[in-house]
Amino acid sequence: MASTTTKTGEPFDRAQLESLMRRRLFYTPSFEIYGGVSGLYDYGPPGCSLLANMVDVWRKHFVLEEDMLEVDCTMLTPHEVLKTSGHVDKFADWMCKDPKTGEIFRADHLVEEVLESRLKGDKEARGQKVEEKEDPKKKKKKVKEIKAIQLDDAVVTEYEEVLAKIDNYNGEELGQLITKYDIKNPATNGELLPPVSFNLMFQTSIGPSSNMPGYLRPETAQGQFLNFQKLLEFNQQQMPFASASIGKSFRNEISPRAGLLRVREFLMAEIEHFVDPEGGKKHPRFNDVRDVKLELLNRDVQLSGKTTVETTPIGEAVDKGIVDNETLGYFLARIQQYLLKIGADPKKIRFRQHMANEMAHYATDCWDAELLTSYGWIECVGCADRSAYDLSVHMNKTGAPLLVREKRAEPLKVEEWQIDVEKKKFGPKFKKDGKTVEAAIEALTQDMREKLSLDLKNNGKITIDVPEVGEGKVELGTDLINIEKRTRVENTREYTPNVIEPSFGIGRILYSIVEHNYWVRPGDEEGARGVLSFPPTVAPTKVLLVPLSTHADFAPLVKRLSLKLRKMGISSRVDDSSASIGKRYSRNDELGTPLGITVDFESVQKGTFTLRDRDSTKQVRASEEEIFAAVQSLCEGNETWAEVSKRLPVFEGQQLE
Amino acid sequence: MASTTTKTGEPFDRAQLESLMRRRLFYTPSFEIYGGVSGLYDYGPPGCSLLANMVDVWRKHFVLEEDMLEVDCTMLTPHEVLKTSGHVDKFADWMCKDPKTGEIFRADHLVEEVLESRLKGDKEARGQKVEEKEDPKKKKKKVKEIKAIQLDDAVVTEYEEVLAKIDNYNGEELGQLITKYDIKNPATNGELLPPVSFNLMFQTSIGPSSNMPGYLRPETAQGQFLNFQKLLEFNQQQMPFASASIGKSFRNEISPRAGLLRVREFLMAEIEHFVDPEGGKKHPRFNDVRDVKLELLNRDVQLSGKTTVETTPIGEAVDKGIVDNETLGYFLARIQQYLLKIGADPKKIRFRQHMANEMAHYATDCWDAELLTSYGWIECVGCADRSAYDLSVHMNKTGAPLLVREKRAEPLKVEEWQIDVEKKKFGPKFKKDGKTVEAAIEALTQDMREKLSLDLKNNGKITIDVPEVGEGKVELGTDLINIEKRTRVENTREYTPNVIEPSFGIGRILYSIVEHNYWVRPGDEEGARGVLSFPPTVAPTKVLLVPLSTHADFAPLVKRLSLKLRKMGISSRVDDSSASIGKRYSRNDELGTPLGITVDFESVQKGTFTLRDRDSTKQVRASEEEIFAAVQSLCEGNETWAEVSKRLPVFEGQQLE
Repeated sequence: MASTTTKTGEPFDRAQLESLMRRRLFYTPSFEIYGGVSGLYDYGPPGCSLLANMVDVWRKHFVLEEDMLEVDCTMLTPHEVLKTSGHVDKFADWMCKDPKTGEIFRADHLVEEVLESRLKGDKEARGQKVEEKEDPKKKKKKVKEIKAIQLDDAVVTEYEEVLAKIDNYNGEELGQLITKYDIKNPATNGELLPPVSFNLMFQTSIGPSSNMPGYLRPETAQGQFLNFQKLLEFNQQQMPFASASIGKSFRNEISPRAGLLRVREFLMAEIEHFVDPEGGKKHPRFNDVRDVKLELLNRDVQLSGKTTVETTPIGEAVDKGIVDNETLGYFLARIQQYLLKIGADPKKIRFRQHMANEMAHYATDCWDAELLTSYGWIECVGCADRSAYDLSVHMNKTGAPLLVREKRAEPLKVEEWQIDVEKKKFGPKFKKDGKTVEAAIEALTQDMREKLSLDLKNNGKITIDVPEVGEGKVELGTDLINIEKRTRVENTREYTPNVIEPSFGIGRILYSIVEHNYWVRPGDEEGARGVLSFPPTVAPTKVLLVPLSTHADFAPLVKRLSLKLRKMGISSRVDDSSASIGKRYSRNDELGTPLGITVDFESVQKGTFTLRDRDSTKQVRASEEEIFAAVQSLCEGNETWAEVSKRLPVFEGQQLE
Repeated sequence: MASTTTKTGEPFDRAQLESLMRRRLFYTPSFEIYGGVSGLYDYGPPGCSLLANMVDVWRKHFVLEEDMLEVDCTMLTPHEVLKTSGHVDKFADWMCKDPKTGEIFRADHLVEEVLESRLKGDKEARGQKVEEKEDPKKKKKKVKEIKAIQLDDAVVTEYEEVLAKIDNYNGEELGQLITKYDIKNPATNGELLPPVSFNLMFQTSIGPSSNMPGYLRPETAQGQFLNFQKLLEFNQQQMPFASASIGKSFRNEISPRAGLLRVREFLMAEIEHFVDPEGGKKHPRFNDVRDVKLELLNRDVQLSGKTTVETTPIGEAVDKGIVDNETLGYFLARIQQYLLKIGADPKKIRFRQHMANEMAHYATDCWDAELLTSYGWIECVGCADRSAYDLSVHMNKTGAPLLVREKRAEPLKVEEWQIDVEKKKFGPKFKKDGKTVEAAIEALTQDMREKLSLDLKNNGKITIDVPEVGEGKVELGTDLINIEKRTRVENTREYTPNVIEPSFGIGRILYSIVEHNYWVRPGDEEGARGVLSFPPTVAPTKVLLVPLSTHADFAPLVKRLSLKLRKMGISSRVDDSSASIGKRYSRNDELGTPLGITVDFESVQKGTFTLRDRDSTKQVRASEEEIFAAVQSLCEGNETWAEVSKRLPVFEGQQLE
C-alpha cells in the first residue's frame, strides 16, 4: 500500500493529523473518561459542523436537484423484517475464540495479520527492507513481534495469493487456512476454536415483554423498501423515482480499528432509485453526465490480479458494457461530482467494481467509489444494483403489493389455452368438492392444457389429478368443460421495480476529505503548522473575525460584522482572545476556516477591513461593502482568491504571521 | 380536558387531521406491512422536510445565534455511564402483569383509566352528561365498557384526588391503590401481580463477547457532560458556555399511545448551558428578553389544585423569584420565541413548573413549555436546572476533572490551622507507619487542629487516634510537629458548573404545530378541504409550480422557474399532473405549501405569472422579476401577503378553485 502525500506533495504524517483533529475536537473517542469504547466516536464542534455541511450539500446535490422523496425511518427494526431481508442469516463476520483466554479474533483479520507478519519476517531474514504499512498503535495489531524467519519461496507465493483473496473466504475456508498455516493466538500461542459466524447487528428487545426481538438497523434501506407502495402513491404513481434517507446505522464490529473508518455507529446517506427493469434501465438525465470521466477499476482487471484503472467517460463505459446500465452510470458520475464538490482530491478517487463473491447478499452488481487515504483505498460510497431482491422478498413475506401497475401504451395480446367450466352442472356433480376441482383445473399449465385439449377432442373426456378428491382422479367430459386457444388482452402491466442504491458512509468520506485537504505550512519560530484547506462550502466556519487587540473600540464593530454575516447566512466566529493575531489565525487554519477579517484602528477610523486567505495567508484591504461582497462571492464559489486579490488592493501593512 | 378549536375557531377533528397526515405521508406507522410496531413511526417526505426545517431554525435560533458548541455523540452508551448518571436505577416506569394472560399494564395508566371509567359510570348512573375525553380507538383503551354504577360521594372525591396526583405515586403506592380499589385486568377481571419497576432503556451488548452491556441513550445530555472538559478547552476556558446536540434518543415505553406524542424512538434537540453556580446564575443577554411575556403556571398554584396561568414578563418573574434565576428565565423566553417562529399558536403555549416529586432524578427545578393539543397540554420542551448533579457524579466515578479552574480576580485569603511535620525525625521514629500517621494528621479538621494546638502549647505533646498503628493512638511532641494559624492565599478557584438544560422533543413539537396550523376551508362541490397554514420558514415546500395544462409550451418555462427558485435556495415542487388546477392547489394546501405560481398562456406570451396565497387563495399577477421578489420577501418574512397584494395587481381571471 502506497504511502500517501499531502496536497502540497509532502509525505503525509497521519499521527500529526490525528493529533490536530483531536486537539481541535473534530472528533474524540466516546466515553473517553470511562476508558472509551472501541469503534465509537463523538464529533466535536468543527467535526459536527463539517458533517452538517457535507449533509447539506448532499441534500441539495441529490434530494433537491432530483426531487427525491426523503424519508426518516426508525433505527429500531423488528426481527421479522431483517429475517426476510436476509440480514439475520447473512450479515455476519467470522470470529475465532481462544477458549483459554476468552479473547476473540476476527478470523480474516487474524489470518491476514499473521501471514503478513510472517512475510515481513521472511523479508528481514533475507535482508530486505521492510516498509511499515501502517502505524501499529493505531491499528491495534494482535501480532506484536516480527520474527526474522526465512520461508520457502513457494510458501511466500502461497501466502501472497491468500492475502490477495482474503475478503473472499467463508468460515470453513478460513478455518482450513488457520489449521493449514498453524495460526494461533499471537500473544499466548494458544489454540483457537474454529471460526463461528457472528451476526453484526446489535440486538435488543422492543416493549416490556420479551416476545419482540429487534435490531438496530444495519442500513437505512429497509425502511425505504417497506414504504415503497406509499411513496409510489405519493409520487402519483410516476416511475422512475428515488427515495432517500440520512441517518445513523449500526454494525457491531468484532474488533474495530482504523479510527473513523470502521466504527460501530455511523451516519449514512442512502438513495433507493426505483427503476423499471425492462428497457435497459435508462436514465432521463444520463446525457447530462455522459462526458464525465471516471477512473474505473473493473472486475476483469482485478481478476487478472491487477489494479490498473482506466480513465473512461461514463457514456463510453456504459456503451461498452463495463458499467451495466445508464442508471448505475448516472449515479457513479453524480457521486464523483458530489465528492469533488465537498473537496475530495480528484487524483484520489477511483471506482472499483465488486468481485462476484464479494458483493452483499442482495446485490447483482456493485461499484464502490473509493478514496485514497493513508489506510489505502477506502470504500466510501457503494453503488449497488439490488435488482428486485428486496421488494420481492418483502412482498412474498407480507403479501403487500410492492409493485408497479401501469397502463400499457399498447395492450398486450397473449395467446393462451383457456378452460371454461360449465358452472351450472359443476356444482350438482361435485358438490362440496366443486371448488377443489376448479382450483385443480385453474392450476393446469399451458402445456398440459394443450395436451388435454387434444384428449378432449379425441375422447370427449379427460382425466385430471385432484389428490384431495375421491381416489385422486376426476373425469371431466365436454358437458362440463371446454378448452380453447384464445387471445387475452392485458391493459395493465405489473412489475417489481429494480433498485439502484448509492449508499454513502458519511463518516468515512469526512475522514478521507480531511486527509485530502491537510497540509503543513513550513515553519517559522513556532514550528510548522497544519492547515485544512476545505472548500468554503463545507468548511466548519467560513469567516474568522479578529479584533487586533482587546481595545474597547473594536468590540462594537466586531459585533456588527458578526450580525451582518449571520444575516447573510455565512457562519462566522469571533476570536477576541489575547493571543497574537498570528496564533489566532493559525489556530483557525487548523480548523479549516477559509477567510479572516481583521478589525484594526483603520477599521475604526476609515471603515476599511482586511480580508485574509487561509491558503496563501495573503490579505487585501477594502471598504466594508467590498469586503463583504468578496466574502459572499468566495463562499458561493463565484470567485477565487486569485481573482479577488487582483480586484482589491493587497495589504501588507500588519505583520500577521 | 377542553376540546380544542382550530385557528379559525371551528371544533378540531383529530380523526380528520390524522387521515390527512397519513394520506399526505407526513408520517406513517413503521413496518406497517409487517403489522407495525407500536410507538414507532416513519416520517414521509413532507414530515421529513418539516422536521428538517424545524431543526434548521432551531440551529440558527440557538446554536448560531449564541455560539453554542454543537456535538454529535453516539447513541450506544455503555452500562457504566448510565449507572453513574442514575438512569439504570431510576429511569423506569411501574408495570403490572396478569400472570394468567401474560398481559402487561403500565400501572399508573391502568389506575387512571379504571378510576376514570368508574367516574364516568357514576355520572351515567346520576344521569349526567359524559364527555368523551379522547378518541378511544386512538388511545387503545384497556377499559372497553363503562358500567353505570353510582358511587358514594366520598368515593368520587377520593378518586378525583387520586387522579389529580396520578403522576406522583411510586410503585408501592400504586400497588396499594390497586389493592384498595380492587383494580383488575379490565378484559378478564384477572388478578394482577404487584407493580414492578421496568427500566425504559433499550438494552444491547457492544462487541462480540457479552461482557460489555450497553443501552441506547435515553437523552443526548450524557455525551455532552462527558465531553465537558474538552469543550471548555475548545472554548478557551471561557465561562459560561453552552453545548448543544440534535439526535435520536430512545425510550422503551411499556404501552405507547397517543400517536406521535409518545414514541419509542424520537428526535431531541438539547442544550447544556454551563454556568457558574455563584453570583445568582446571571445571563449576559437577559436584558434582551426581560420584557417577553410568558404564561406561567407555577408550582404553588398547582399545589392549590388550580391551573390558573399568569401572564408575566420574564424579568418580573425572575425578580419575584417565581422563576429561580436569569439563565433559566432567559431560556424560557428564547424557547417561546422559537416556538412562535415555527408556527405555534401563541394562545396555546404555557410554561408549567414541575412539582417537587415530579422532577427527573437529576433536576432541582424544571419548567415545561407545554403546547395545547387535542390530547390536552403536552410537554414539548423541558427546561431543567440540573445543578452540578451530572458533572459531579461522573467526576466522582472517573476522577476526570469535570470542573472549571479560574484565576481569582482578587486572591482569596483563607485563615487556617496548619500542621508542620518534622520529616527528618518522623521517619526514624515511625518507620513503616510514617505515612499512615502523616495521613491521620492531614485528615484532622480545623476545629480539632485548634483544640490540639492548645494541648500542644500546654502539655508539649498531643495524642491522636491512628487506628491502624500499634494500639490505635500515637503521641506527638513539639519535636515532631508544630501547629500554627496562618493565612493561605488561593489564586485559583475551582468549581463544578451548574447546568441549565433546555430539552426539545422535536416530534412532539411537530405534531402540536401541525394541530395549531390545521383548519378546514368551507366546502364547494368537492367538500371541505384541509389546509395547513405553516409559516413559510418551516413549510415543507415553499412554492408549487403549476402549468395550466400539459401544453408543450409550458414545460421549458416551468423548468426555468424551478431552477431559478433552487438557485435562490427556495424549495419548490412542480405539479404537472393532469388534475385540475383547483385539485392540484388543494392537494398542496393539505401539504402546507404557502405559495403557488401558475404558468399559463400569458406567461408564455407576456412573461407574467400569477402568484397564489394558500391561506386566502387570492392571486396577484406580475412580471417574473416582481413575482420572484415577492416570493423571496414572503419566504423571508419581510412582507405579508396583505402587503404584497396591495403592491401587485390582483388577479381574478382564471377560476382556479
